[in-house]
Formats: sequence, structure tokens, C-alpha cells
Amino acid sequence: MFQDFKLAHDRPVAIQAKEYLKRLIIKGALQSGQKLPSTREMSSLLGISRNTVIAAYEGLQDDGFAYAIPGKGSYVAAAIAGQTDANDGWNDGIASCRIDWKAKFNEYTVSASTLDTMKRGIHAPKDAISFTSIAPDEHLFDLGDVKRAFLDRMAIEGQVLLNYGYAKGYKPLIDYLMQYMENKGADTRGKDMLITSGFTEGFDLVLSALRPTTRQGRAICENPTHHTAIKNLKLHGFELTGVPMKPDGMDMERLEEILRTESFDLAYLVPSYHNPTGIVMSPAKRSAAMSLLARYQVPVIEDGFNEELRYSGAHIAPLIATAGQGNGVIYIGSFSKVLFPGLRVGWVFGDHELISALESMKRARTIHTSTIDQSILYQYLLNGNFDKYVRKARMEYKRKFEVTKKCCEVHIPNAQLTGDGGLHVFLAFPTGADTRRLLEACSEKGVIFTPGDRFFVREGEGTNTLRLGFSRVTDENIERGIRIIGEQARSLFHS
Amino acid sequence: MFQDFKLAHDRPVAIQAKEYLKRLIIKGALQSGQKLPSTREMSSLLGISRNTVIAAYEGLQDDGFAYAIPGKGSYVAAAIAGQTDANDGWNDGIASCRIDWKAKFNEYTVSASTLDTMKRGIHAPKDAISFTSIAPDEHLFDLGDVKRAFLDRMAIEGQVLLNYGYAKGYKPLIDYLMQYMENKGADTRGKDMLITSGFTEGFDLVLSALRPTTRQGRAICENPTHHTAIKNLKLHGFELTGVPMKPDGMDMERLEEILRTESFDLAYLVPSYHNPTGIVMSPAKRSAAMSLLARYQVPVIEDGFNEELRYSGAHIAPLIATAGQGNGVIYIGSFSKVLFPGLRVGWVFGDHELISALESMKRARTIHTSTIDQSILYQYLLNGNFDKYVRKARMEYKRKFEVTKKCCEVHIPNAQLTGDGGLHVFLAFPTGADTRRLLEACSEKGVIFTPGDRFFVREGEGTNTLRLGFSRVTDENIERGIRIIGEQARSLFHS
Repeated sequence: MFQDFKLAHDRPVAIQAKEYLKRLIIKGALQSGQKLPSTREMSSLLGISRNTVIAAYEGLQDDGFAYAIPGKGSYVAAAIAGQTDANDGWNDGIASCRIDWKAKFNEYTVSASTLDTMKRGIHAPKDAISFTSIAPDEHLFDLGDVKRAFLDRMAIEGQVLLNYGYAKGYKPLIDYLMQYMENKGADTRGKDMLITSGFTEGFDLVLSALRPTTRQGRAICENPTHHTAIKNLKLHGFELTGVPMKPDGMDMERLEEILRTESFDLAYLVPSYHNPTGIVMSPAKRSAAMSLLARYQVPVIEDGFNEELRYSGAHIAPLIATAGQGNGVIYIGSFSKVLFPGLRVGWVFGDHELISALESMKRARTIHTSTIDQSILYQYLLNGNFDKYVRKARMEYKRKFEVTKKCCEVHIPNAQLTGDGGLHVFLAFPTGADTRRLLEACSEKGVIFTPGDRFFVREGEGTNTLRLGFSRVTDENIERGIRIIGEQARSLFHS
Repeated sequence: MFQDFKLAHDRPVAIQAKEYLKRLIIKGALQSGQKLPSTREMSSLLGISRNTVIAAYEGLQDDGFAYAIPGKGSYVAAAIAGQTDANDGWNDGIASCRIDWKAKFNEYTVSASTLDTMKRGIHAPKDAISFTSIAPDEHLFDLGDVKRAFLDRMAIEGQVLLNYGYAKGYKPLIDYLMQYMENKGADTRGKDMLITSGFTEGFDLVLSALRPTTRQGRAICENPTHHTAIKNLKLHGFELTGVPMKPDGMDMERLEEILRTESFDLAYLVPSYHNPTGIVMSPAKRSAAMSLLARYQVPVIEDGFNEELRYSGAHIAPLIATAGQGNGVIYIGSFSKVLFPGLRVGWVFGDHELISALESMKRARTIHTSTIDQSILYQYLLNGNFDKYVRKARMEYKRKFEVTKKCCEVHIPNAQLTGDGGLHVFLAFPTGADTRRLLEACSEKGVIFTPGDRFFVREGEGTNTLRLGFSRVTDENIERGIRIIGEQARSLFHS
């Protein structure tokens, strides 16, 4: 015994020794009541110092796996129920208990798996040039500022940050973001805010709160739109009606026609750097759309998405600013696409009664969002790092956008490009082109992208489209990748 | 104008100036096309340096609120839709759009609010001695070690930690915790793990996955039990059947009788330091209960709760260890009660097919748990800080437990105390005593606690009980608080 003890270099040795002995006890290799080798013996058996063995034995005692008899030594503690060697028969019954979990899943659970496209992600050959991601480029992250934000906040608040926080969120961050929304032109009267673990939690909470349970819910959205939003709307049982996109946002005539003939529980809109088309809805359309939706009393969920990334033209107020004191818009924001997705912080801003209900739901589901994440973000914003970072990020992404756009014009001239910036562009080939087939061909050449059909409300739509995320691709690979896509498209689509 | 500019001491001045000017533009005090004062003028108007004004103007340009004409100066950018002064009539319609949100809430949303007792927390007079919390004492937190864990991990992984992670969890942490479960005696074959934002998210996901949707779900649990669990079970539509508690765990005869006559979708059990009674289920009962539940094919959700806090006696294997290769137990763990509740990290460990479905649900709801939280926790564990901390925490809580127990014996001799340690004890007065009335009386004397009825499955049960959380109360206040509770109890209950 004791010959298979192996040391890892990055962990305290006493703990490794303790856990090693614990495993021997659990496996039954060391039996209850058995005397452990003296610390001196064990030291030479394991090849570690005697003091380390003493610490390991103390640890075993703390955890109830051993006891000491003064003057005699350490002994393995009484065997306990459930251990293999303590098995007296009825454990067999427990161990052979097989639950057929799949048979127990409800419809929601099954749908969550079926609609989980991430699980069946696009298979990429090694070293492929991948245009599938629209996550930010982590090389832009200013790690030093993030560390400083963490240490600054720790120095100010100390241990309190590690204890329970509030479901509603970290108060200083809420205050900051309320002001932030006011600076975007939102009227904060009668409104309130809930901090969530990213945009997605906020969206999921709102849909959970508003899904009708006695009939099917009905939602209206841009078509195409953010595929995760489509997934979550479907998961919550909503039937989707899509409004086709024009270069400056939704087709307003179509919107009016739809609203006139059908009724909806909610609208989901992405007015800035719309995913996947990259379109920024024009100010005129924002007002017109809001006016129409207000007339038909349709609550609006506004996806703030990467609004902060706008790198051209005048500032455009979010939809919620258009609503003034009206309470019909729920704004869900996040810095995930601009700042750090790993920090899971988002916010829901809207009518105070709605926020109060969402707060109770949030408490029941996750208690509260990580205080560490919230406080790092708060201090980072307070330190002025956000402004500095966004300036750098905007410049870099703008440059990459120009490169991408130019390459598409040169290499894929027959596809129509939309996108004013952000982290991606969207291409539409002539009708009949099949971008899934294109993906297969490109993948063999080491280039992958996201086929556009998954952003469309109905199956079979958008089969001639694709999204190119350029945020994490080098200039050189953007050029090379797009050239390959162009070549394959020409050969496949005979254009 | 510009006279109301006030500087906060803790933020970069240029950003404060930029935001101040932004607000003036949004309010319409600075109109579109209007020339801004020269940087020299503005510097004297705001009382800040000219370089700072230059930076503020650049910031306004970046954000699209101003533009510069070389040689002439800076101008306010074109007014945009939605601003008060750009209102041309139809915004009135939007602003007057009032949604009656409450009328739109579904049953779940309403229940989440109704069952949210935290929102109507126990009203405490200022400086009251509060026994309501069972959060850990933050003064025990070793902040230095947490900081080091953060910086260590950052140094190793860098920016990657701030970008998107995986729904399943941070791989090194999963590997660590799988080993950790094995060290508790669990058989990991055919099992898998999902990292969640604390115990609560794990529990909520499991209930969402398993709630029957075509009929009412039925769950069996200890009675009393964790009130948040009761809330979440009810929120998911489960009807609860409670098994009365004996000093060493559930009344097994009652359990058998119930299982013989009724069928259940799941069992929820808290075997160690049961909340609220503090009881540790004996090894014999663990095996017997598991054997019974396996015979009736009832899936078990095991709440790991503060298992790590055991500070007396031999180690006791969790229920899932008893199950061996059986897949009927779902173990939900968390270090929240032992370590840092502010770090929202928990884990669900169980059958791999179940975990796979939960992973898809988790992705749809919150994408993934904070990578910062996960990586801090991982490095903290790896550095061996956990063992060191738990040893300190166990000693301190054990001491406080002894003080609390002794004070109860002296001052409240007619109440029966249960609890082997943990962070709380549970008191049962003779039948007929009303601890809500006792709470009112004590609250007037500056002492509060948690009335026990909220831990019971049915209304009207446990009205003679209360829970005392001692983790965050000083020894002196434990003594004083319990004396006051005793005095009030004597006078109210005439005992």
C-alpha cells in the first residue's frame, strides 16, 4: 500500500496526502479501527515530511475519517453506511435502483434540449477560420483595470462583498445604471431596475412572468432575429410572427398590417446592431414603430444588446426613451458584448410593478447575481475604465468592420451585405442559394460561419443567408476566409 | 447655465463633465446645432482644467452627442427621436400608453410574489439582536486568500476568464468537484455535474425539469424543512407531504406508511444539519430511508446544504454515496453556507442524462455561471485555503453553538432544543405556545428570530416553534437575546 501516491505540483502537499488517505478509507483499503502507520513511518512511505503527515492526519480527524488515541496513534474512524465494504445487503437494492430520467422529463425539458443548437455546434476542423462567434475579442480586455477594480472594491467594502447580497442587485450598481439609463434619455419616474445574470436571465424572467398559461402566447419580432431569443420565446410557448427587415429596420407597412389583423402579448425588438443583420433602426422608424405598438397596446421588450458599440453617426435614443413616462417598454441591457461576457451582469429596466414581480422570481430562482461580478463592474465603470475601453473597442471593431465589408465586396460581390458595424455582418445570396451546403464546402477548406436560417422565425426561411462574426478573427484571416467563401460560393451557386 | 455642475470625488472628472453635458443635451437645455462654449470658456465655467474639457468634448463626440468643425469649435449633434424637445405629437400617444402589468402576470408570477416572504421580512427595530440569519459570519472570511485566489487565477488564465465560458461550468472546477464527490464516497460512473449559480438555481432547474405538466406533482420531504425549498416546490406546483422528524432524522415508520399508500414524483431531503431543526440524520436512517425510497422508485433530491460544517463525530456519507451505481439520487451542493454566499456557485451531481438536459435548460436561462466566481472558488480550493478556513469556521461555530445551547437550557428550559451544530438551533415550546406572538413581544425588546411555522408544509403547523441562527450574533448578544426570549416566553406562555 501507499505506493501509488503521486504528488501534483500545484496543491498543498498535506491536503493531497489527506485526500489520498481518505480515498483509501472510502475504498475500504484502510479498514475501520485500523491503526494508521506512525507519522514517522508514513513520512517515509509517502516520501513527504513528517510535519506534513501530522497535518494530513489532523485533517483526517477534522473530517471525521480518523481519531487519535493519545500516546498510541491515529486510527481509522468507524465505517459508515453506504461504503462498499460496509454493505450488508440492502444497499444492493438502492444501487440497482434505476430511474428512467428521460421518461420523467416534461415538454419544456425536452424542448430545451431539442432547441439547444449550441450542443450540436458547427463542427469545425482544427485551426479553422471561424466566423461563428460574436463574442468580443478578449485581447482588447484591459486586465489590469479589471484587477484594480476588484482590489479597489475589496478595499472599500471588504468581507461584506462575499456575504449574501440582495435579489434586486448591488445597490451602487443599480444607482449607477439608473443614471446611465437617464443619460440615454429614459424617463426613470415610475420605473425600477433588477440586476440579472446577463441579458439572458432578464429575458427568461420576463417571458416566464408574461407567458399566458391558459392559451398559447403570441409574440411579434423582427425577422430574422437573435436565435437565442427565438429559442427562448419558443421554449416559453410563444408563437412567433416575424416582420421582414428593410435596410433601416422593420418593414413598417407590414408591421401595421400585422398589428391591425392579429393581437400580440409582446413584441421583441433589437433596435441597434440588430442580430443577425447588423441593422440600426433609424430614429424615424423607432418613433413610428413605438407609436404603432402603443396604439395596439403591445408591450415591448427592447434588447439593448451592443448598443454601446455604435461607432458611427449621431447617438440614437433607445426605444424606451421614446416612451417617456409610458410604461410599455421593458429595456434589457448588458455589457456582455462590449465588455466581458464572463462577468454575468445584465439589467431589466421598466415599470416598477413589473420589476417588483421579477425580483421575487429572481429570488426564487437564483437568490441574487454574483456580488463579485456586480461590484467589479461597478468599480470598473466608476473608475472611468468603461469609457476608455469602449473608445478602444469601437476603433478596433470599426476597423475590422471596414476590412470585412471590403473583402465581402471584393470576394462575394453577388451577396447583399447588411450591417452598420457591431461585431458581425449579414450576407444574403440570391434566392435558391443554400448556405448550409456552402458551409459544408467551406468547412472542408477550413472556414466556418453561421448559416442564416437559424435566425428566421419559420423553418425554410433565410436558407440563402449567413452571418459573419469578425470580432475574434485576425485581419489576415478575415481576408483569407472571405476569399474562400467567395470561391466556394461561385463554384456552388454558378454565379 | 453650467452653474449646477457638482463634482463627486471618486470618479474621473472628464467623465463627470461629459455626462453632465449629455444630460443638458437630453433635457434640451443645449439644443441641436448649438455651438458649445470654447474649451477655454468651459474650463472656467465648470472650474476644471482645459485638458479635462477637451477630453469631455471628445467623449461627447465618441458617443454621438457632439461634432467638431475644425477651426470653429464643437457643436451639439442633431436632435434625435424621442427627446422631449423633438416631440412632434405622436410621442404623446406612446407616453400615455399604460400597460396594466399586474393583469398580465400568470399564476407563477403571482405566486412568486405571494410566497416571497423575504420581501415582507421580519421588521426589526434598529440595533436589534437578530437571530434570523443563517448566513456565515463574514468576519471569518479570509479576504487575503480570496484576493490571492483571484490574482493567481488571473495570472494563469488571463483574459480568457472574462470571455464566454461553458453552460456546464468551468472545467477545472468540475474536475475538482467530481473528485470531491468521489472523496465523499459517491460513485461517479454514469454520473455528471452541472455548475449552477448556487444551490437555489440547481434546485429550481431540477424542479423545472421534473414537474409533471399534465397533473399535479407530488413531493415528499422532511417536516419541517427548508422554507425556500417549500416555496420553490409550491411554485412549481408540487403538493407536499411531510414526514415528521425524530431526533435522528425522519420518522421511518411514518415514511414507510406514506410510501405504501401514496406515490411521489420526488423526495427532497436535507440529511446534514437539516434546516431548520439542525438534526443530522443517522447513518442507519440514511441507509434505511434510501432503501425504502429505492423500493418505491422515488427519485431523491439531496440538499448538501452545510454538510461541510460538521464539527463533531465521524464523517457520514451523503445519501448519494449510499446509492452506489444507482442513478436515483440528485445531489445539489454549495459552499454558500460554509464559504462565501456572495460567490454564487453550486453544483448538481447525478445521472448523466439528467445533467445533460439540465445543461440545456441552464444555457437557455443564464448561459453560464460567472466565470470569475467559479475560477476564484477553484483556485481557493486548489490553494488549500478551504481546508484551512473550514477548520477555523468549524471551531468558531462549534463554540457559538455551545454558547447558544447552554443559554437556551438556562433561559428557555421549557422549550425542546434540536440541533447538532451548523449555524442554528431549533426550539419547540409546549403545544399551544404561539411564537409569532412571542416574536412581537421580543421585537419590542429588541430581539428577533424566525418563527418556525414557515418551515412546515401545512399552514398552522409548528406555531410553537422557532429557529435561532447564531452565526452572526456575538456571544454577548447571544446571551442577552436568549435571556430576553426566555423572559418574554415565561410571561406570555405562563410557564
